[in-house]
Amino acid sequence: MSDVLQALIDALGEDVVMHGAAVADRATSYWDAAPTQALAVLRPRSTAEVSTALAICHRFDQPVVTQGGLTGCVQGAVASRREVILSLERMNAIEGIDAVGGTATVQAGVTLQALQEAARAQDLLFALDLGARGSCTIGGNVATNAGGINVLRYGMMRALVLGLEAVLADGTVLSSMNQMLKNNAGYDLKQLMIGTEGTLGIVTRVVVRLHPLPSSCNAALVALESFDQVTTLLSRMQRDLAGTLSAYEVMWNEYFQAATEAGGHRAPMGRDYPFYVMLQAEGADAAADAARFERLLEDAFEAGLIVDAVVPKSESERRALWELRENFEAMLHGRTTFLYDVSLPIREMTAYVDEVRTHIAERWPQARCIVFGHMADGNLHLFVQPEVEGAAHAEGDAAVYGPLRRRHGSVSAEHGIGTEKMDWLGVCRSDVEIGMMRALKQALDPKQLLNPGRIFAAR
Amino acid sequence: MSDVLQALIDALGEDVVMHGAAVADRATSYWDAAPTQALAVLRPRSTAEVSTALAICHRFDQPVVTQGGLTGCVQGAVASRREVILSLERMNAIEGIDAVGGTATVQAGVTLQALQEAARAQDLLFALDLGARGSCTIGGNVATNAGGINVLRYGMMRALVLGLEAVLADGTVLSSMNQMLKNNAGYDLKQLMIGTEGTLGIVTRVVVRLHPLPSSCNAALVALESFDQVTTLLSRMQRDLAGTLSAYEVMWNEYFQAATEAGGHRAPMGRDYPFYVMLQAEGADAAADAARFERLLEDAFEAGLIVDAVVPKSESERRALWELRENFEAMLHGRTTFLYDVSLPIREMTAYVDEVRTHIAERWPQARCIVFGHMADGNLHLFVQPEVEGAAHAEGDAAVYGPLRRRHGSVSAEHGIGTEKMDWLGVCRSDVEIGMMRALKQALDPKQLLNPGRIFAAR
Repeated sequence: MSDVLQALIDALGEDVVMHGAAVADRATSYWDAAPTQALAVLRPRSTAEVSTALAICHRFDQPVVTQGGLTGCVQGAVASRREVILSLERMNAIEGIDAVGGTATVQAGVTLQALQEAARAQDLLFALDLGARGSCTIGGNVATNAGGINVLRYGMMRALVLGLEAVLADGTVLSSMNQMLKNNAGYDLKQLMIGTEGTLGIVTRVVVRLHPLPSSCNAALVALESFDQVTTLLSRMQRDLAGTLSAYEVMWNEYFQAATEAGGHRAPMGRDYPFYVMLQAEGADAAADAARFERLLEDAFEAGLIVDAVVPKSESERRALWELRENFEAMLHGRTTFLYDVSLPIREMTAYVDEVRTHIAERWPQARCIVFGHMADGNLHLFVQPEVEGAAHAEGDAAVYGPLRRRHGSVSAEHGIGTEKMDWLGVCRSDVEIGMMRALKQALDPKQLLNPGRIFAAR
Repeated sequence: MSDVLQALIDALGEDVVMHGAAVADRATSYWDAAPTQALAVLRPRSTAEVSTALAICHRFDQPVVTQGGLTGCVQGAVASRREVILSLERMNAIEGIDAVGGTATVQAGVTLQALQEAARAQDLLFALDLGARGSCTIGGNVATNAGGINVLRYGMMRALVLGLEAVLADGTVLSSMNQMLKNNAGYDLKQLMIGTEGTLGIVTRVVVRLHPLPSSCNAALVALESFDQVTTLLSRMQRDLAGTLSAYEVMWNEYFQAATEAGGHRAPMGRDYPFYVMLQAEGADAAADAARFERLLEDAFEAGLIVDAVVPKSESERRALWELRENFEAMLHGRTTFLYDVSLPIREMTAYVDEVRTHIAERWPQARCIVFGHMADGNLHLFVQPEVEGAAHAEGDAAVYGPLRRRHGSVSAEHGIGTEKMDWLGVCRSDVEIGMMRALKQALDPKQLLNPGRIFAAR
């Protein structure tokens, strides 16, 4: 047994330090059922135990990979045989909810859904929402600055974190459990832990902001004939729904076709429109909000902005419409698919999509290029299906990421960089920026022990 | 002439490098008409000139103090005779507004009001707003993470900054002019420049987020009998005004009394209620929004939450009500006043105010303690008027800041630390936190040249 493993067991006990065959019984991630590889899996029950673990690893120069719900999309939490995994799975307590202040205090291992439900039980909303809600954890949401379907109205995870506690590489506990919307007493240190993918510290506890729970919800799926109409409708809805517009999800025709092909969803309207938008507003006055929503849709019809619309008549109809947008497993089944998550200025989007399509068609003439996303946030998801044997992922990357540079886009809107996108970081970040990231890593984790080799190569 | 001054003149010219008597012709700040003290005042016209200036200062180990609109409240931009001032006053161009994307790109020296007006001309809103709007600059707003009266709905400046360009201590230009709401490609470096009071870099250009311009505005001044009613009314209004509540400003009785005393404002209602709240909602449907606002006020009356209300009948009446809250010069006139800006959890506020009053009364039996603020943000402003000769500021500080520690409050909600609050930072930040601030300063500005001795003491 290695010295570091023995020291960890001596300090924390066999119950916290899982090693040997027990490690291999765990799946690598939500996406990969292969056995976990790691020197050990630590499952601490408190910030103090996390601190003890990191202090020991620091003494032995032992790299540590942090794991939350393992639903990440960029291979950021996958460990090697020589790394120690630290999982927050046992730190899953909701410590308290302050209804007057509109805050919740939770341990990092709480799942997103558990927090959403605890807030809802007090007529409050935890506004982050995304497909992985049942498995992903608040700590992971912080580490990756998670996005999802409510960003337009409530912002990304960064906007919902008021305070946090984290353990630094040497075991030092940084506790900044601020509960106020406003606090300008020196540097806002929590920003260093949000979206840095566990490379600067391990988040153990978090104070998040809660919002009032909306009591009305109006949604519609609409069809449009041009991208100009998509942006004009967005501007109008943002203005006229005054703070209640919560989703504006755009689907290019190919997405709608693929989602409604044989074996997929029933098409609720014609399949040949160039663009489809799923929009939703959440307010507090059922009758008045519904009337306003319908009137705005009618106005959009009369102005020639939209050419077809489906307004759900029930909660189950509303959910069925969302299934079209959220449940896209069928279109991936049995096909090699490269998944992308990019962002770019809205005004660049059509030209960008055309350019990507051209590059893809040059490589793979039979390819499908399926585009959709949280357009109002500047965020597009792309599924590239080459439809040929042996297509190289890197070829797809070049086609999708290459055109972003001069359009000032980003290779990662909400998924992060992890190890998967590391080679493409330079498309959207300058050498000065990457140098500054390295300087921060050097300042906080000089031995390069926390999630080493994620985001940028370890040195 | 010193070597550094000569080198600056050689590189940038006499027009950029103001020195000698010309420096003393400038006032120290908005608050202090005394002559500016400094080795020189640099007025660069571009990021490149800022970079040149800092590279030279770095070579000569010359400390640099950055100046924006000079309206800050914590003595952060006041220079000494041995420091060089770098003013962004000439970098005041609005470079562009993207109405579809909802962004504006500006140089750091643009005033807040100029940006507000440029956005409004395109039916868009730049949501930051505060009393100093005519003088304060966007660069200063970024450096101090400015707050103000719209934070409840739109967040502080941090939430409105999408991208920025800054010059580091050695002259390196860090350009991160992101325009998207979502971008998770590595560390979000702009966070290091927001709210760090110019100690880590000099912000030269900024991309900010714009919102739709609201077209309806409803306001009311209401009176309440208990703090519980103040918080209950806040929860209700946040819920029922669904995303449109933009201001909820609380005034304790002493504030209202002082604002309406002889020589001050006309009292629009009785002066003896324990609490007054100015609330405002901004939406997009004039008739429907007004009806909803009035109905919610009636409901609050019927529920016994509010005991009196004034609803303005015109824009000028609405402005007059706001004057009560914003124009408090008269109550300061001729009296020694210590001004404070703290934040703490809402549930702690009444007990905290009681405790401060007790401490103040023990020191100065005749003192006035005037409390008001952006309560929904956890932010209280306090004016302490000792009403005796020779009262020591530090005594007031101890009375106001001391009780914050165990209530997990902050000595600075929105004004920052500067030099004025430096001695009190330890009330709300641990040694670990302050150590981490120092580590960041060391990593980015190892010679301690940018705004040295602000926030924490230089080493």
